[in-house]
Amino acid sequence: MRVYSTQKEPLKTILARKYSETADVSDVVSKIIKRVQTDGDQALYQIIEEIDHVVLDSLAVSQEEIDSALKAVSPELLKVMEQSKENIWSFHQKQVRQGFVSTEDSGVVMGQRILPLARVGVYVPGGTAAYPSTVLMDVLPAKIAGVKKIVMVTPTDNEGNVPAAILAAASIAGVDEIYKVGGAHGVAALAYGTDTIPKVDKIVGPGNIYVATAKKMVYGEVDIDMIAGPSDVLIVADHSANPRWIAADLLAQAEHDKLAQAILVTTEEALIEKVQTEVAQQLAALPRQEIAAAAIENNGKIILVKDIEEALSIANQIAPEHLELSVAEPFALLGKVENAGSVFLGHHTPEVLGDYFAGPNHTLPTEGTARFYSPLSVDDFVKKSSYLYYTEEAMNAVGPAVELFAETENLMGHARSMKVRRGEDA
Amino acid sequence: MRVYSTQKEPLKTILARKYSETADVSDVVSKIIKRVQTDGDQALYQIIEEIDHVVLDSLAVSQEEIDSALKAVSPELLKVMEQSKENIWSFHQKQVRQGFVSTEDSGVVMGQRILPLARVGVYVPGGTAAYPSTVLMDVLPAKIAGVKKIVMVTPTDNEGNVPAAILAAASIAGVDEIYKVGGAHGVAALAYGTDTIPKVDKIVGPGNIYVATAKKMVYGEVDIDMIAGPSDVLIVADHSANPRWIAADLLAQAEHDKLAQAILVTTEEALIEKVQTEVAQQLAALPRQEIAAAAIENNGKIILVKDIEEALSIANQIAPEHLELSVAEPFALLGKVENAGSVFLGHHTPEVLGDYFAGPNHTLPTEGTARFYSPLSVDDFVKKSSYLYYTEEAMNAVGPAVELFAETENLMGHARSMKVRRGEDA
Repeated sequence: MRVYSTQKEPLKTILARKYSETADVSDVVSKIIKRVQTDGDQALYQIIEEIDHVVLDSLAVSQEEIDSALKAVSPELLKVMEQSKENIWSFHQKQVRQGFVSTEDSGVVMGQRILPLARVGVYVPGGTAAYPSTVLMDVLPAKIAGVKKIVMVTPTDNEGNVPAAILAAASIAGVDEIYKVGGAHGVAALAYGTDTIPKVDKIVGPGNIYVATAKKMVYGEVDIDMIAGPSDVLIVADHSANPRWIAADLLAQAEHDKLAQAILVTTEEALIEKVQTEVAQQLAALPRQEIAAAAIENNGKIILVKDIEEALSIANQIAPEHLELSVAEPFALLGKVENAGSVFLGHHTPEVLGDYFAGPNHTLPTEGTARFYSPLSVDDFVKKSSYLYYTEEAMNAVGPAVELFAETENLMGHARSMKVRRGEDA
Repeated sequence: MRVYSTQKEPLKTILARKYSETADVSDVVSKIIKRVQTDGDQALYQIIEEIDHVVLDSLAVSQEEIDSALKAVSPELLKVMEQSKENIWSFHQKQVRQGFVSTEDSGVVMGQRILPLARVGVYVPGGTAAYPSTVLMDVLPAKIAGVKKIVMVTPTDNEGNVPAAILAAASIAGVDEIYKVGGAHGVAALAYGTDTIPKVDKIVGPGNIYVATAKKMVYGEVDIDMIAGPSDVLIVADHSANPRWIAADLLAQAEHDKLAQAILVTTEEALIEKVQTEVAQQLAALPRQEIAAAAIENNGKIILVKDIEEALSIANQIAPEHLELSVAEPFALLGKVENAGSVFLGHHTPEVLGDYFAGPNHTLPTEGTARFYSPLSVDDFVKKSSYLYYTEEAMNAVGPAVELFAETENLMGHARSMKVRRGEDA
């Protein structure tokens, strides 16, 4: 891993991140979306044949397929997924909000209601990245929010099948309908609806550049959760950190994607070489060695800082998706964290605990977007609606003020709407 | 206004909405954004000269300009704006959320923090639509959230000045910096930053098609509030409704924009002609008659329904920005409202009360997006960050489960991150 020191190099150089040459896929995606909008199911079958090289009999996953999947996965895995569900449910239950009401002596009543979205689409990637954990993470908050219909779309393998673990997770999570369509066409189907696939109100879930581009294009027609890029971790380590564990966590991140980012920020010069040695050793034993090595080469960094304050300052500027505080007193640093999707405190809280099991969501803002995006939560599956009630007396009391404001904006029709009620119109 | 009956026409015909021929401005906007990204301030001065035909000495609004504005507006208006601020503040204070923590016997600690965005950009339209009320509505929730820097951008008039009422509202609301740049270039400046204008984390506020397109294009680089279109109102009226008041409210909506939508849904056939007569009479007296007449012509509708349940069903399908329940028992219907930005209950709560004064936000989802978008709120100016802490014992207890899940996903590096801590790695 490349080593930097904030004493020697400007921060701008240190923080520069290597991205892929992102091909502009806008044209391709835009054409796919138009085809699905125009020809619905027929376009889906055709595009799936053209792009995914699969001929499907039916877009819908049948109950038999789900039942088979539940038998195909091991009882141990089912049990782990059920435990994981319980933990995710329990954490996300705490996100449920109540509306509010405010009443005044004058008789005025106003407030805010919180209502579930009616229909949500969950995009689940296929191919090498079949992640049943993502199914649980994306679906369970929607269930808690009270979403009536949860529709999952996902590509199939070459034989037209969805991996058993994905179907099992969908069944455990309570997905209502599953369709065999991925890519930009899957997103388009959810955004505009077809005869088979219902139009939804919001699309969530990760995907490749085609999926991300399609999500951005249909944004506004439906809501989306976020635009996600390659995953990242930043580990802040002090003298108490274990180089072996740190190396393992950097590599866990790196094995996701050649563009994943794994950064160590440390106050301990002595730690650097030890971590380097461990990374090299552990990398050699990793099945996804090629991917991890490329990620380490592209965006792996060790940054030596003068003190822990500087470490946190760098973390806040990078705004990592995952922030591990591998320090002796991690809770003392929590209040200094301004930008991070999820924070993992102490030496015994590796990020993978959060990926699978602990409860907090693993769908998190990437590429520095933790500055403004949040972990996926129950909030993503509700909308708010405000309400207002005035009595005649209360309305009369504020009439002149409202009319003056309306007249300032040259909206005489607005002023008149008050005046006709107050008997003030000519 | 065109009259429909659900007994006679299919709902699809009734609900069809007339839009403008939206020119595709993507190319123009995309070029403007690139210029601002590349040449920063220099591009801004040039584009302002080219498009807005104004030569500016400085992009920043000076303290002298703000002081002059505060003297130029009437003391009455200042007082009304202060009252309005108080009401908006009081309502939005109730939206402030606390984070949470969950502790377990095993020593596990996890939770969610709620943190203010660091920098927010507020777009304020200029031209004929100078709305100081929007400044209050968009800025005050950000102040309550604790945003450190609020940057406003707005186009000027031909002399390079911003309307006094806008500057006064910005001063009252507590905007930190104001810049004289509108359009797509204003959005680009906020999204990417220039030497003068700081890059922000989120851009909020309404604007024309160039602004909306630019917001969508920079979405992901920064967050945005929503993509807003023409405004709309839907009024549900029963026998108790006053046709004069209903006509005034339909016209208040219509005077915004030729594409604004004003719909009356009623159970009372007798009401229809009375409303038509009132609309015609009141329209004749309206200064913005031309705009309002076009809106009524384009998208003004009266829909006769068989009962109040059907009225609510139509309202939920349209998902109006503003929903007036002009009925004898409005609170009995509130629970039936599934999709509406803001609901106005009873005969003495015209929508204009909410536009200016009552407290709830007037920046609301338009064009049916109340299915998934919410009124602007304090939530728009915060992000969430989760955190997790495991003890060694707690980690060891769940280790095998987490490893099984990771192995199912073929992420051996993930499994290894647990194993090295549990002394289970080879």
